[in-house]
Amino acid sequence: MAESLTPDAERPSGEVQEGAVAVHADDGREAALILDRARESVDPELRSAFALLPAQMRRVARYHFGWENPDGTPADGSAGKAIRPALVLTAAEALGGGAARAAAVRAAAAVELVHNFTLLHDDVMDRDVTRRHRPTAWTVFGTADAILVGDALQALAQMMLARDPHPAAPRAAARIAACVIELCEGQHADTAMESRAPDEVTLDEVLTMAEAKTGALIGCACAVGALYAGADDEAVDALDAFGRAAGLAFQLIDDVIGIWGDPGRTGKPAGADLAARKKSLPVVAALTSGTPGAAELAALYGAPYDQGDLERTVLAIERAGGRDWAQSQAADRMARAMDQLARAIPDPALADGLLALAEFVTRRSS
Amino acid sequence: MAESLTPDAERPSGEVQEGAVAVHADDGREAALILDRARESVDPELRSAFALLPAQMRRVARYHFGWENPDGTPADGSAGKAIRPALVLTAAEALGGGAARAAAVRAAAAVELVHNFTLLHDDVMDRDVTRRHRPTAWTVFGTADAILVGDALQALAQMMLARDPHPAAPRAAARIAACVIELCEGQHADTAMESRAPDEVTLDEVLTMAEAKTGALIGCACAVGALYAGADDEAVDALDAFGRAAGLAFQLIDDVIGIWGDPGRTGKPAGADLAARKKSLPVVAALTSGTPGAAELAALYGAPYDQGDLERTVLAIERAGGRDWAQSQAADRMARAMDQLARAIPDPALADGLLALAEFVTRRSS
Repeated sequence: MAESLTPDAERPSGEVQEGAVAVHADDGREAALILDRARESVDPELRSAFALLPAQMRRVARYHFGWENPDGTPADGSAGKAIRPALVLTAAEALGGGAARAAAVRAAAAVELVHNFTLLHDDVMDRDVTRRHRPTAWTVFGTADAILVGDALQALAQMMLARDPHPAAPRAAARIAACVIELCEGQHADTAMESRAPDEVTLDEVLTMAEAKTGALIGCACAVGALYAGADDEAVDALDAFGRAAGLAFQLIDDVIGIWGDPGRTGKPAGADLAARKKSLPVVAALTSGTPGAAELAALYGAPYDQGDLERTVLAIERAGGRDWAQSQAADRMARAMDQLARAIPDPALADGLLALAEFVTRRSS
Repeated sequence: MAESLTPDAERPSGEVQEGAVAVHADDGREAALILDRARESVDPELRSAFALLPAQMRRVARYHFGWENPDGTPADGSAGKAIRPALVLTAAEALGGGAARAAAVRAAAAVELVHNFTLLHDDVMDRDVTRRHRPTAWTVFGTADAILVGDALQALAQMMLARDPHPAAPRAAARIAACVIELCEGQHADTAMESRAPDEVTLDEVLTMAEAKTGALIGCACAVGALYAGADDEAVDALDAFGRAAGLAFQLIDDVIGIWGDPGRTGKPAGADLAARKKSLPVVAALTSGTPGAAELAALYGAPYDQGDLERTVLAIERAGGRDWAQSQAADRMARAMDQLARAIPDPALADGLLALAEFVTRRSS
């Protein structure tokens, strides 16, 4: 349901700087260290959790995580960048120090399991054939196994939390379960939107969908970290809002790159999202702008895709203000994220790790 | 993943009495009262839970539960017999009285949500088109919505438990999550078995699969009830074993009825399971019996179904001892169930409700 935050190739640099205020200038090195450390912390928890699965289901899970090839031999595939567990651990450490970080490792692994359960199911629903440079699990093991392993990963996540004696565990479990419902809602809205005419989709709807699909679990990860640090409700909610806003900024920028990014760097053919008639944020902003560009775009989107129309489509979105809107919205969401971060963690030195991660996901510092 | 315990029509009476010891002679009336009371207790919890879903997903859930037609108008469909929530509540009451029963209502609803999440997903995986006399949810709302609503029901179940302040809630949540993994394992084994040659499936495998698919959640329901009564570990485990054994007895009897039951009463065409080459318990017992009937059955099962072969197939299973084995196994499992019940609840007066439910699911008293 959520985007993976792990695009197939590096994002183009400098594409979406406009309107955004770069705060970190370390080129993502701090974020990379935080992510590596998070992966080291949660991987043993994930491996123990998978050991509870029967052999064939474990194989599907380990394949999906990039640890094994379909035949069970070790693989050097990517398990994703561990953004969400890193947010759990970094939020816990920022608000509660090293002890809180250590206490939150299990919850961080649970959040990663939930994220991957939704990816397994999304790929089945969307019939997507590639994930993290490899064939999706359902194309390798069949739809039934992909559904079952997704179901089992959700159960494993909740089992880990139910067995966690930390006083924050029940609230974290409730928050994660509520987030799963929101993720389902986002995926549902996305699927339903695909079959509707372009002029029937409002900007509010697509923003709500993007927040549910992408922002909700990023926010939840931050909130769970705060819970394990024993933070008060206000700080927990502020960190949730921080993650949601940063997640939405990420989605806006990702959509911009999907249209204006360099195919050589995004790893996707030029115009793939437009060819698929995706109702991405810049497209819906353009369609609902009431400009001449909107009418032209609606006519183009109403007809089957023709490679020859690609440039005209891109230009129509630009003329209708879709790109400018998305970039200024992304900057606005990042500003909101920073406000919420400062509310939750007033000391900039303590907030620095979360800031680095937020910038990493939106690639503003790249 | 689990059988519904709610066949499309009444089971034939007297079919499977052989070898079984009838204890209750009230024709299921006590069980019917317990089930009605359970439905009354948990339905408000379920309705509140569904209110947390977005409108379209709520519609799928309410349709699946038999409360609404596809267009959202009220329906008088059956939501199933509420066996599992009734087991939770009856176990809680037997071990902890009325207060424990009242405290366990939320957990009983959570168990019912888990059961229905697995049914929604099983129907997608098995491409089953009918459930409780109506078209399955995926045939009405599409595969994506059936998967998403299943995911959301699992999340709702865990959310209810995570928000339940009762001291037993975390252990119940962990037990239910572990049970989901076992249900997935059973469904996985069942799906994998379908594509294997009949002579490659062992009786142990098919018994393990049936226990995981059918016994595990029945046992879990009983154990959850015991947890809410504050029972000690021994009683909790004994009630789990009671439910597992009764669930397996149910499955054995259900498989016998699938072959020898009166189609006019089972609601299924004669030989439907055999035509589908199902590796049901009596069939695998026959195939692995090493008798001449086994060889004949293997030859018949190895060829495409021919209506003219139905009688020969049924007779081969009987000659190979498949029917006798299943009936004596069912009696044996029920005897084990009774032993475990007496261990957990020595006072027969207190154990009476659980006994009535066990007999109801195995229809020994009908």
